[in-house]
Amino acid sequence: MWRPFFQPYHLIIVQDGDPSKTIKVPDGFDYELYNRNDINKILGPRASCISFKDSACRCFGYMVSKKKYIYTIDDDCFVAKDPSGQDINALEQHIKNLLCPSTPYFFNTLYDPFRDGADFVRGYPFSLREGVSTAVSHGLWLNIPDYDAPTQLVKPLERNTRYVDMVLTIPKGTLFPMCGMNLAFDRELIGPAMYFGLMGDGQPIGRYDDMWAGWCCKVICDHLGLGIKTGLPYIYHSKASNPFVNLKKEYNGIFWQEEIIPFFQQLNLSKESTTVQKCYVEMAKQVNEKLGKVDPYFVKLADAMVTWIEAWDELNPPTKEAAKAPNAASKQMVS
Amino acid sequence: MWRPFFQPYHLIIVQDGDPSKTIKVPDGFDYELYNRNDINKILGPRASCISFKDSACRCFGYMVSKKKYIYTIDDDCFVAKDPSGQDINALEQHIKNLLCPSTPYFFNTLYDPFRDGADFVRGYPFSLREGVSTAVSHGLWLNIPDYDAPTQLVKPLERNTRYVDMVLTIPKGTLFPMCGMNLAFDRELIGPAMYFGLMGDGQPIGRYDDMWAGWCCKVICDHLGLGIKTGLPYIYHSKASNPFVNLKKEYNGIFWQEEIIPFFQQLNLSKESTTVQKCYVEMAKQVNEKLGKVDPYFVKLADAMVTWIEAWDELNPPTKEAAKAPNAASKQMVS
Repeated sequence: MWRPFFQPYHLIIVQDGDPSKTIKVPDGFDYELYNRNDINKILGPRASCISFKDSACRCFGYMVSKKKYIYTIDDDCFVAKDPSGQDINALEQHIKNLLCPSTPYFFNTLYDPFRDGADFVRGYPFSLREGVSTAVSHGLWLNIPDYDAPTQLVKPLERNTRYVDMVLTIPKGTLFPMCGMNLAFDRELIGPAMYFGLMGDGQPIGRYDDMWAGWCCKVICDHLGLGIKTGLPYIYHSKASNPFVNLKKEYNGIFWQEEIIPFFQQLNLSKESTTVQKCYVEMAKQVNEKLGKVDPYFVKLADAMVTWIEAWDELNPPTKEAAKAPNAASKQMVS
Repeated sequence: MWRPFFQPYHLIIVQDGDPSKTIKVPDGFDYELYNRNDINKILGPRASCISFKDSACRCFGYMVSKKKYIYTIDDDCFVAKDPSGQDINALEQHIKNLLCPSTPYFFNTLYDPFRDGADFVRGYPFSLREGVSTAVSHGLWLNIPDYDAPTQLVKPLERNTRYVDMVLTIPKGTLFPMCGMNLAFDRELIGPAMYFGLMGDGQPIGRYDDMWAGWCCKVICDHLGLGIKTGLPYIYHSKASNPFVNLKKEYNGIFWQEEIIPFFQQLNLSKESTTVQKCYVEMAKQVNEKLGKVDPYFVKLADAMVTWIEAWDELNPPTKEAAKAPNAASKQMVS
């Protein structure tokens, strides 16, 4: 199903679990495949920051990629159809989202003003109409919605059938639950913050990999004057994961997120943090100091965040251009 | 067209312009009609706060109403059709929006979690799922979009044909351009902030009546822990107003809004302001102090804001219940 949409692109496959098993990739795709042995060989001791036996391992792919735009998708996601019955080209819509500006400083009631047939409405300040660069495009899911285990247990039959024909910028200062099922981003703008944390094997938590990355990315985008969009495109999410297994992975996260969200809401990055890497390392320090009190896990996570940045910088030596701040937040009118 | 939808309700008609003219109201409606003479008689010298020869005069109706829910609509708006061809009952959708909670403290990627077939997604803190009371429901417009004069001039043929099947809460800390064309609100929760300012006859500005009310309402809702929703329902906006006339009304506003938006973004209300009235009077003081420097018009407007509250309280003597704060913001996790 995905062949016509994925074939033009370069694929990076991160094989989780037993590295002695062989993954069969269908013919005709341009791809690289990495298993755990490859990750250990490439990163050495720093491989400790890459999760094992958890979907969080995929972020290794973000680090080794040399492309500007990354799209990440779960293995149980298929091509969705729009209301007219046409197959949705998810990648095309993500690229559109990433290529046109975001508007995080003021809400536009007709949503994305850069879409055909829309614009800024009356009362939208003209100084804000240029917008800012878009770093992340968060797509949605028809059929099985992305619910937590308690909601899955309570509403086992709920299906998402509503196609909302819309893309919007998540406003500055507002956090959101970023799902990694159907997600695209500009690696040059936000890549180093797209770390999926320590999850799965040996860790007290799972299913919070994308959430963690989302909260970190949002705070950094707000600080650097970058945008995050959500809405179109849809993919078709075929099967619900087991809610009992999910509950076991999630229960610490469900408890901890009550502390994590206020932490990120109140987090302030200093003016000296002018690159994603600097922001991320400063954030790691605050995670250690403030969330370390909630559970020792966060001390370990804060260390892994720093290791991740070290590994990123080793594999991606900074160029002159990348050393510049992606966007001058101070030029923008901000709340 | 509106008869089946409006007939069950009580109408308040505020007649603008020459009071000697007689407005013909079709049979079968339960209504009150007020012209300028009535406004002058009821409010005495305080009638100065009600605009003349401008759509802003409609807010007099909000003041004299005794109902809990108010719906306000422009005279060139008709019943829209949903994608299945059904007539949209705008009032029914507004009431739904106002009766179910808002979620201003964290963004839900499946939009209104209280709608059928939707819920809070994975990663949404459970402590925030109760939501807060909804004070305002902002509906949208098919056909002629609500553009300012410059955009009207540049895109005379643009029509809004996209039906976005969605309602969402505008996040805390985010301002939006509130349009009075298709708007509902809970008068008990936010009524005294729904003042449409000094516009039209004798004033240096027009077409910013609803915008002004929207900025004031949003800041007060954020402060008091109330919600504002936008999206469904749609009405059909039949004709574009004259862009040349609009430009004359708007040009000061287009210039001033560049100062007004940062003013409202930075405005902080004190803990002592626990009612809408107190918030509004505190806000008037800051308008005088800070926007008064931009133009003397804002000194006059600040005075009118205080007069409006005096008139409101005279016509609506506070009851024991209304004296309480509508919502305890301190109970909520806020950013």
